[in-house]
Amino acid sequence: MTSAAVAMICGGGNLPLQAAEAARRAGHEIFLIGLKGAALPAIQDFPHAWVRLGEIGKLFRLIEGSGAREVTIVGAVQRPAVSDLGLDIGGLVAMPEIKRLMSGGDDQLLRGVVAFIEQKGYTVRGVHEVAPGLTAPEGLFGACDATAEDAAGVAAGSGVLAAVGPYDVGQAVVAIGRRIVAIEAAEGTDMMLRRVARLIEKKRIRREGRGGVLVKAPKPGQDLRIDLPAIGPRTIELAAAAGLTGVAVTAGKVLVADWNDTVAAADKAGLFLAGVPAAA
Amino acid sequence: MTSAAVAMICGGGNLPLQAAEAARRAGHEIFLIGLKGAALPAIQDFPHAWVRLGEIGKLFRLIEGSGAREVTIVGAVQRPAVSDLGLDIGGLVAMPEIKRLMSGGDDQLLRGVVAFIEQKGYTVRGVHEVAPGLTAPEGLFGACDATAEDAAGVAAGSGVLAAVGPYDVGQAVVAIGRRIVAIEAAEGTDMMLRRVARLIEKKRIRREGRGGVLVKAPKPGQDLRIDLPAIGPRTIELAAAAGLTGVAVTAGKVLVADWNDTVAAADKAGLFLAGVPAAA
Repeated sequence: MTSAAVAMICGGGNLPLQAAEAARRAGHEIFLIGLKGAALPAIQDFPHAWVRLGEIGKLFRLIEGSGAREVTIVGAVQRPAVSDLGLDIGGLVAMPEIKRLMSGGDDQLLRGVVAFIEQKGYTVRGVHEVAPGLTAPEGLFGACDATAEDAAGVAAGSGVLAAVGPYDVGQAVVAIGRRIVAIEAAEGTDMMLRRVARLIEKKRIRREGRGGVLVKAPKPGQDLRIDLPAIGPRTIELAAAAGLTGVAVTAGKVLVADWNDTVAAADKAGLFLAGVPAAA
Repeated sequence: MTSAAVAMICGGGNLPLQAAEAARRAGHEIFLIGLKGAALPAIQDFPHAWVRLGEIGKLFRLIEGSGAREVTIVGAVQRPAVSDLGLDIGGLVAMPEIKRLMSGGDDQLLRGVVAFIEQKGYTVRGVHEVAPGLTAPEGLFGACDATAEDAAGVAAGSGVLAAVGPYDVGQAVVAIGRRIVAIEAAEGTDMMLRRVARLIEKKRIRREGRGGVLVKAPKPGQDLRIDLPAIGPRTIELAAAAGLTGVAVTAGKVLVADWNDTVAAADKAGLFLAGVPAAA
């Protein structure tokens, strides 16, 4: 673990604040750059400054002034219209690049932003790298234990995720016993969990009592600097509503958002929480 | 292709009638055994007899009397209560076996029925074996052509299905371009297609105009004698509603129910229909 200075470009939600605290705990000197209209006012509790999305010139002056050579992008940002960017001179100079980036998908946009920052000589790091305390550790990290059946489900689920990885799909699956009952593709984890609950309710999935696990992992080719898989209190709620008995995620590579709330929700609902090694 | 005599145990729907015709075209001598309360009266257009589900003694006398050494089970049967079986002496003798079979899942029940028939010295054949004209042939079999993009989607989809096969999951996927947007597990193909339509409507999947393919294949370990994947007019409707441009299925191993209607629906909606070789 380095303890380099890190400039954190902050979007919305609590995550930037949690990341800032965790990065500081990990020994990093941090400087937060809040995106106006997205970042929470509470970033002012840390060394910080504000920019509009289009103030590219100002953004790089702020990064430069912070002394950091490493940059992390954290928190949600609504995809803006070009006219809302509030472009400064630096932004206008980068305009052709910006337009090209904004014509693609979200992933392409973020990949472009990363490349753009790296062109300027900075290293873009994933939030899991600078704030390791926010990702799941290896082993059980809630109060509940997993059964042998749970473990078999986790193994089956991890296997499926590894198998589909080369096709750039499948961040999550639900296994009941060894049976895979749902595989996530474009719908996202929440919708998949709701589907499982519905299928059980309609008896399209037969199950005696509670049982089953959610297994979540990054895709092999996923750029964790821009797209870190995450679980949070809502994931636990939905998993509990589907009658599952636990959630297993790849240790070190899946974010546990609102850590205390997530763990408390799992403990309360009787779900185990586990960090498992990445499948081979 | 043999042209052995075949006894066809017939459940509900048109499929038994279509299978009987196709088996006859393929040179088989056929004898239909209609399950009362399930099979359509139109089976009387073929050499036939009727039994109640529990008339096991009568069933085997009918098979024996038909001269057939091969048996096929075709058409839908609602899972009955033991009290509704109408057990005859043969059924009562087999009662412990029947109770054991009925305590498991549908698959287990059907596997047990197959084993039970084979114990009596008959060979159970899949409907795709005795009525080969009902499954998709290799190549395009509707009026519409597939584009290179469609072909790339079919390749990606087939790859994913082959990859998850060892986990006994995934009879179908939807690919848009090369991107896998949905993988079927317990929900079934219809629900998966509805999900894709909804995700596109909500812009959770970005797509320019129409595009995308449904790819459907048996699981590697699937017993095609009791569980043959199928497409039909409804599959085409749902694929069209999701804006897809075609459907590809494993040649010889996926049933095309109501053949003429299915092909007509695809032609009308502008979807290609293709039979593709099983993935390696």
